[in-house]
Amino acid sequence: MYAVIMAGGKGTRFWPKSRERMPKHLLDIVSPRTIIQETIERIAPLIPEENILIVTGESHADELMKQVPHIPKENIIIEPLGRNTAPCIGLAALHIRRKSPHDVMVVLPADHLIHDAPRFRHLLSAAADMAGRGDFLVTIGIRPTSPETGYGYIEKGDLKTAVNGENIYTVKSIREKPPLKQAKAFLKKGGFYWNSGMFAWNIDAILDAVEKWLPKVQAGLEQIAGTMGTAGEKETVRRVYNEFPSISIDYGVMEKADNILLIEGDFGWSDMGSWDALWEASGKDENGNAANCRDLFVGVDARNSLIHSPRKLVTLLGVEDLIVVDTEDALLICKRGSSQDVKKVVEILEAKKKKEYL
Amino acid sequence: MYAVIMAGGKGTRFWPKSRERMPKHLLDIVSPRTIIQETIERIAPLIPEENILIVTGESHADELMKQVPHIPKENIIIEPLGRNTAPCIGLAALHIRRKSPHDVMVVLPADHLIHDAPRFRHLLSAAADMAGRGDFLVTIGIRPTSPETGYGYIEKGDLKTAVNGENIYTVKSIREKPPLKQAKAFLKKGGFYWNSGMFAWNIDAILDAVEKWLPKVQAGLEQIAGTMGTAGEKETVRRVYNEFPSISIDYGVMEKADNILLIEGDFGWSDMGSWDALWEASGKDENGNAANCRDLFVGVDARNSLIHSPRKLVTLLGVEDLIVVDTEDALLICKRGSSQDVKKVVEILEAKKKKEYL
Repeated sequence: MYAVIMAGGKGTRFWPKSRERMPKHLLDIVSPRTIIQETIERIAPLIPEENILIVTGESHADELMKQVPHIPKENIIIEPLGRNTAPCIGLAALHIRRKSPHDVMVVLPADHLIHDAPRFRHLLSAAADMAGRGDFLVTIGIRPTSPETGYGYIEKGDLKTAVNGENIYTVKSIREKPPLKQAKAFLKKGGFYWNSGMFAWNIDAILDAVEKWLPKVQAGLEQIAGTMGTAGEKETVRRVYNEFPSISIDYGVMEKADNILLIEGDFGWSDMGSWDALWEASGKDENGNAANCRDLFVGVDARNSLIHSPRKLVTLLGVEDLIVVDTEDALLICKRGSSQDVKKVVEILEAKKKKEYL
Repeated sequence: MYAVIMAGGKGTRFWPKSRERMPKHLLDIVSPRTIIQETIERIAPLIPEENILIVTGESHADELMKQVPHIPKENIIIEPLGRNTAPCIGLAALHIRRKSPHDVMVVLPADHLIHDAPRFRHLLSAAADMAGRGDFLVTIGIRPTSPETGYGYIEKGDLKTAVNGENIYTVKSIREKPPLKQAKAFLKKGGFYWNSGMFAWNIDAILDAVEKWLPKVQAGLEQIAGTMGTAGEKETVRRVYNEFPSISIDYGVMEKADNILLIEGDFGWSDMGSWDALWEASGKDENGNAANCRDLFVGVDARNSLIHSPRKLVTLLGVEDLIVVDTEDALLICKRGSSQDVKKVVEILEAKKKKEYL
């Protein structure tokens, strides 16, 4: 069993902490360890380090290797440019195929939060077990708590079987990022799950699916496969990636395939897409404040705020519902609920050509 | 004509910018120059530098001298400890008496803001002129704009005379820091002025008044006078100050004396007692934001806030009515209107023994 960690994210939504050179998964915003360190540690009891592959961009590879020195260097797969998840997963599958062509591969985003790690491992294990039994694309679904429009929705079908006590279902349909009205209807109707972006499948199963639904991607992948391990590999990867479409595995394969299975991921999940999500997920003091500098935070009549400041004394006086993020060179103060607009700040800085803050 | 600048303030109300070692008058919170630099520059066309004395505390003297290098060192009078304004003014009067015993002395706080400097000089000149004519204590009154309870109120009497076209009035009464109800009544009744803490008088007049109303202070001052210019002066000052009562010139002399005159200081005045006052006094952009880092401030849906951050990029997103003060080691975020509570933060830091932030 192999794990592929997709670490291609940019994470402008965590500006000013996240930067072009320092995306979310490389940050220690949740715990003293970085998010990718937590992600690796979470699966370590299940998958040996030599079987963990990480796919990342060129500009983040050095920092990543520093953070996970125990992962073999040859397991860090570098994409010359980002082309969304379908090429990323395909490239990783090629690497595993060379080592163990009929093995199971689980795919995990680098930057999600998971509350109950043992439960997560149990479910991942069941998903991988099911994937090993045949030509299935097993996806881990999350029971939705709100009509989010940024996620894909998976409609549960019939119970297919149970593995290690976990139910596995067929899938009726997958709808990527629905409009709000539809998302609300899904929630009301029930039986819909968020697509977590976590999958388990046989190498054969996923490469067959890419061949069937994304033949152009498959053709490029085979060109890469032909040069793997040779001096021409890097050049070929770059050339092929330049020609790849930018397409997600969800749109490209999952929405079309008919061999998808669903397992419910009830392990406490958050994709941590914003500072607001971090406040939601954080432990809070009696006034609802979540400060990562506990001893260096002084609140007077201050409530329900997130304070992210690793070293500086932060004092809040008579304010509430704020997100405060202090870094070496930039300070963000944002109303809670508005943190999705942090990208507007990044856009303004881009327009002003303030590169040093991007 | 001599000027005495009282620079004994602590200024915890401008924390985290003001600190024990860096009181308000030494800060550049209003302009690129510090407040005491502005104060000195304002009177420079009127009073030669060798006639400007500054009274300050031991711990601030070095920084002060750095900021006003053109003031002769012997004009920096150091108090071993603060005993409010009566001993401070008395000590300064002794220094001037040695040089020019029958001269006029004007007394000015180090840390007030004045909008119209030429008008200020004209009035100060008129006040000094009147003071030179006899045994008068001339005080500059400010027409009140709100029922402040932190100021003394001077009730205007009859027109006494006019000097350089400026009316000089007798004074009916002085009431230090009245309760709100009374302050409101003063405002309604009219003819009351805030005590600005700016005075003009003959050396004889003020020392006679101290002798009459504060005989203990006068006795101490004469002990100091007896050792001035000798090796024992410093030791005597320390001993006498230890025994001085802590008393303001307002309570100790002005409330009791019957030779007080009033001139109206209509030059645009603020004692700048808080961050709120700074926002009021500051120029603002079209959204009501006053940022001292104009190019490094990005506001998105952000209004009516003060941003004080000399070097760091500050971004406000969906917030209003905030006071944001960022320093090297501490950050304050305060609701506008609550900045008088900054002292509560300082008290908490004192209780927590966080000396490095005081």
